[in-house]
Amino acid sequence: MKRAVAGAALVWGVTLGAMAQGAPPQNHLMPQPAELRSTQGSLPLSASFQVATPVFHDDRLDRAIARTLTHLEATTAQPLRTEIGRGAAGATLRVEVQGAGDAVPSYGEDESYTLDVTATQAELAAKTVVGAIRGLATLEQLLERTPTGYAWPAVHIADEPRYHWRGLLIDCGRHFEPVPVIERTLDAMAAVKLNVFHWHLTEDQGFRIESKLYPKLTALGSDGEFYTQEQARAIVAYARDRGIRVVPEFDIPGHSRSWFVGYPELASGPGPYTIRRDFGIEDAAMDPTRESTYVFLDRFIGEMTTIFPDAYLHIGGDESNGKSWKANSQIVAFMKAHNLADTGALQAYFNQRVLKLLQKHNRQMVGWDEVLNPALPKDVVVQSWRGAQALTQSAQGGYRGILSQPYYLDGMKSAKEHYLADIVPPDSPLTAEQRQLILGGEICMWGEQLNQATIDSRIWPRAAAIAERFWSPATVNNVDDMYRRLAVVSLQLEQLGLTHLSHQEVALRGLAGSQDVRPLAFLASVTEPVSFGERYRQQHTSQLTPLTNFVDAIRPDPPSRHESNMLTHHYLAKPGVENPAYGALVSFYQRCLQQSPAVDEAVRAVPQLQGVQPRAEQLPVLAGIALAALQYTAHGTHAPAGWKQQSLATLQAAEAPAGIVRFTFLAPLRELVQAVAE
Amino acid sequence: MKRAVAGAALVWGVTLGAMAQGAPPQNHLMPQPAELRSTQGSLPLSASFQVATPVFHDDRLDRAIARTLTHLEATTAQPLRTEIGRGAAGATLRVEVQGAGDAVPSYGEDESYTLDVTATQAELAAKTVVGAIRGLATLEQLLERTPTGYAWPAVHIADEPRYHWRGLLIDCGRHFEPVPVIERTLDAMAAVKLNVFHWHLTEDQGFRIESKLYPKLTALGSDGEFYTQEQARAIVAYARDRGIRVVPEFDIPGHSRSWFVGYPELASGPGPYTIRRDFGIEDAAMDPTRESTYVFLDRFIGEMTTIFPDAYLHIGGDESNGKSWKANSQIVAFMKAHNLADTGALQAYFNQRVLKLLQKHNRQMVGWDEVLNPALPKDVVVQSWRGAQALTQSAQGGYRGILSQPYYLDGMKSAKEHYLADIVPPDSPLTAEQRQLILGGEICMWGEQLNQATIDSRIWPRAAAIAERFWSPATVNNVDDMYRRLAVVSLQLEQLGLTHLSHQEVALRGLAGSQDVRPLAFLASVTEPVSFGERYRQQHTSQLTPLTNFVDAIRPDPPSRHESNMLTHHYLAKPGVENPAYGALVSFYQRCLQQSPAVDEAVRAVPQLQGVQPRAEQLPVLAGIALAALQYTAHGTHAPAGWKQQSLATLQAAEAPAGIVRFTFLAPLRELVQAVAE
Repeated sequence: MKRAVAGAALVWGVTLGAMAQGAPPQNHLMPQPAELRSTQGSLPLSASFQVATPVFHDDRLDRAIARTLTHLEATTAQPLRTEIGRGAAGATLRVEVQGAGDAVPSYGEDESYTLDVTATQAELAAKTVVGAIRGLATLEQLLERTPTGYAWPAVHIADEPRYHWRGLLIDCGRHFEPVPVIERTLDAMAAVKLNVFHWHLTEDQGFRIESKLYPKLTALGSDGEFYTQEQARAIVAYARDRGIRVVPEFDIPGHSRSWFVGYPELASGPGPYTIRRDFGIEDAAMDPTRESTYVFLDRFIGEMTTIFPDAYLHIGGDESNGKSWKANSQIVAFMKAHNLADTGALQAYFNQRVLKLLQKHNRQMVGWDEVLNPALPKDVVVQSWRGAQALTQSAQGGYRGILSQPYYLDGMKSAKEHYLADIVPPDSPLTAEQRQLILGGEICMWGEQLNQATIDSRIWPRAAAIAERFWSPATVNNVDDMYRRLAVVSLQLEQLGLTHLSHQEVALRGLAGSQDVRPLAFLASVTEPVSFGERYRQQHTSQLTPLTNFVDAIRPDPPSRHESNMLTHHYLAKPGVENPAYGALVSFYQRCLQQSPAVDEAVRAVPQLQGVQPRAEQLPVLAGIALAALQYTAHGTHAPAGWKQQSLATLQAAEAPAGIVRFTFLAPLRELVQAVAE
Repeated sequence: MKRAVAGAALVWGVTLGAMAQGAPPQNHLMPQPAELRSTQGSLPLSASFQVATPVFHDDRLDRAIARTLTHLEATTAQPLRTEIGRGAAGATLRVEVQGAGDAVPSYGEDESYTLDVTATQAELAAKTVVGAIRGLATLEQLLERTPTGYAWPAVHIADEPRYHWRGLLIDCGRHFEPVPVIERTLDAMAAVKLNVFHWHLTEDQGFRIESKLYPKLTALGSDGEFYTQEQARAIVAYARDRGIRVVPEFDIPGHSRSWFVGYPELASGPGPYTIRRDFGIEDAAMDPTRESTYVFLDRFIGEMTTIFPDAYLHIGGDESNGKSWKANSQIVAFMKAHNLADTGALQAYFNQRVLKLLQKHNRQMVGWDEVLNPALPKDVVVQSWRGAQALTQSAQGGYRGILSQPYYLDGMKSAKEHYLADIVPPDSPLTAEQRQLILGGEICMWGEQLNQATIDSRIWPRAAAIAERFWSPATVNNVDDMYRRLAVVSLQLEQLGLTHLSHQEVALRGLAGSQDVRPLAFLASVTEPVSFGERYRQQHTSQLTPLTNFVDAIRPDPPSRHESNMLTHHYLAKPGVENPAYGALVSFYQRCLQQSPAVDEAVRAVPQLQGVQPRAEQLPVLAGIALAALQYTAHGTHAPAGWKQQSLATLQAAEAPAGIVRFTFLAPLRELVQAVAE
């Protein structure tokens, strides 16, 4: 499992590790623990391996240990003893937990643990079962392959999270995600110590949770794609088993058209309503002026609290444009009568009413930026999709906050970009007291352009790098080292059942109609999807758009992005044929040239790949420029007059939209061309 | 989707198609229809494609059409109109169905359909919705990629099955298979027109269906891995939507130890009982002498009939060795008192009693060979696991029968072997009337050595070839053509969500701990798992054996098996360098030589691959023998004295067990060596 670093260089033929010669042996943990001290020796994993819980145990701890044993068995193909001892005698791994912790996982629950491995035994100590679950995740990642078998290196780890709210939002409204997708996502979250599953359950495009009080919500608003209450409860239990909270979101008063299909009386407009198929801001909104709306919400929220025990409940509150309110004379009259100056004030009124309902049901309110209004008390939590500045303002205003904007996965940014965006940057103007109001961060996976086949590849492995940002000390920020470990954790996540790696070849086989997809796979290795916004502008995707084209097959931030950057920078620091990066870059761009005819042929054979043809045509041209630039710079020769200008123009042309995919190596290639003397 | 034939030659570098030069264009349908006539022209699939049901429609038909549209959209990445017209005007595809058919899919229900495609429209006509579902499966397979888009070739098809019982058994007792596995299996079954899902729900190793009357069956007998009644009903509905019957099996009086964990009073022995972990024939059996046993079974069967509406119910009845009966003096006394000469007679008594219960609950009894006893009436259906001869005898005895033995997938046989084994061979002694008693065949996927990660690769694509045997005329038996189409259908099944292709690389990445698994993938391409029995003998697998080793990663009957056979036979028909098979064979064996060092290194790097090391060492030796044999035969030269004998000895040594995997090309290689002059 632990030789994975070699695999990061599938395209480039050179390992990242090889660039950092003489470095000490490094661990593959992600997130990195707060404190780690290597000691001498190692503890082999043998058939006699025996776990014991001599201090405390409960069913949840036993199940967590059983999962770890199953994972260790799968990794090593070796059967292990599955009975858990209750005394310390003879145990190879002692799991010493002080107590069960909170019955419902809570914000701020102690997640700390220590892990001490010696040549003869391992000891995992934690105050709570959740802490032990975090330590078991570390233990699994720590196992290493040796020439003779598997073993843990001797080590002392003392670990705890930097932030207590480390979330992942999945939008199941715009596209439904079946239960197995949610389950494997929770498995992956636990592996990288994320602890909040933010379940975006309702949208204009679909209402995804069964209400027995209001059955038409799903009967008419979901296309039959929703979670039964039994399924949702099972998900909550599944998450709890992994020390993960489930925060449900019911987005109101906007983003709510699917509610109105079954219950038009909730809406501000006359109706009737249908499920929305396209995307963007919706005019339809709940009517905040009728008491019947609050009666409905009171009963609905009460019902939902029987499914979702978490202390927090998300009411959305974003992107309500007020149009349907202004178009309704009764609502306009209400605003006048209640001295509500604008629709923002009306939404604040609505939020105050909803807040009271949440308080009645013992829930703390979370909402997006727009809920922020002086009229609201300070115990509302603001989730910022507008960015760090909005979060700063809300903290300065005394509100607790969660940062999301730098962690929007649909922007198709690199793991590096997400990784380097801290929740509270070093230059933040917030006081120490105000910083206490920042609960943590949330990764957002919005659902416009994904489905159950593609979602894993959009979330993983990038979310693992963000999970480290949320958990580990701010000083853990070496990008090269992050990518080295990300390649390892990516393979580990696949073995948990995630499809982020396998999906690409499955999809390419579907496109090619062939088992031999090497040419398309090569093109995939040097391209990535454009951002959500750019794809939307070019394709105007809707909920009904088939998501089986090339852009859906390929992954954001494939290894070639970081490797081309790293190798080019390494090379440009001291250009010359003796620089090891020179050979790697030449070899890669020559491969691009060699593969181009086959890529071109493969693309032309498939009607729906017509849009990608420009990329297939650009590939050899760009490779030719790169190889020329490498020659000029390596030998210190001058390029012919005009070569540089023309090459840069070609690069710029390759940045123009085509096939809703983009090359991964254009930025370092530009630097390379810029470095050519003329 | 339809260029897949090129992919069959991933290893060999030569297409199967290329070996059959000048052949007319061929369809890729599997199973082949009873009657197909190609005509001129083709019907393009465009955005204006519109389906109508002008004669009859119901929800099931609408859902089937919606699925077909979704598949067509996925294949072409083109959005289609999803509303179904109710009038014929303007429709591109008219689905003309006479009526709903049976409320519960039944044995013998009319599955016939006709499909007529012209350059302007398509017409699918069927008597029943199930017939239309079969026709829609054909329509999906018929779509072809053209240089300008997708189109259906003009064609007249009149189709109906040869056998009405075309089943697939999945053993969910020995290893549990989660709901998504069952659902995607049903999707695949529908794609190749299988129509009986035989759900083996109880075993010594696990009781997998919830009983509300007897909750301890799963509470103590399932390790928590079972189907709730709600899930089982959803599976039955899912199957019905695809025209598939669900025949549940509750195996009694043997194979039932898991029942006794919660209800030891059912057993013949004193108990207590635990879930069995290892495999093989179990001594524990139900007590057939107590009336309380029949009270239990009566209530249990009654409860199960509320979940499973099919007219048939399978009571197993196999491999009850009678030991626990003979060891119980009360049972021995009962046998004496009732003039039951031996335990076989006692089992016949038991079966008669159970038969009465089934009759009371309106179910026809199905049982394995062992239920056959003169004491049983003729309306019991015998499923033969002992083979065609046993089936012949039961038909001669007047019993209806289903053949299973030649279709045991855990034997790890080739698709060819299964395909050529007909249900009623041409030389069968059965009269025409007796042949009417043969209901059909069932593929069996026993669960000792598989889990949810590996099951797809054990069933598919081989089961598709058997599905053709069950559906198509006996005259459809060209093996090369079967493999040509199997490669296509295999890719289509993957796009339905099956993991039979993707699993291999996922598993190899897990083993290698690297994204680059090319060396292991090469070894995988020329090896396959040994049979269930051979693996059991070598590894003594139990329910707790981790299934993550090399043998679990690789597939039975990979393309190299048939291709090495075909190419070698083609070559030996006229040896010489001018034979195109010569170059293909040389190229392949050279590749084996070239890859060997990398394969060897990759295998040595992973502790659990130690068992496979002999195969890595044999590979270059065998390739060397092959290349030499090709030189001798191509040039008509004599091998040195002793070469042949020594080479055959080496081949024989390579057949000795190692790593519980075997080479795919040994048989044709032996023929090649035999052909060398000495």
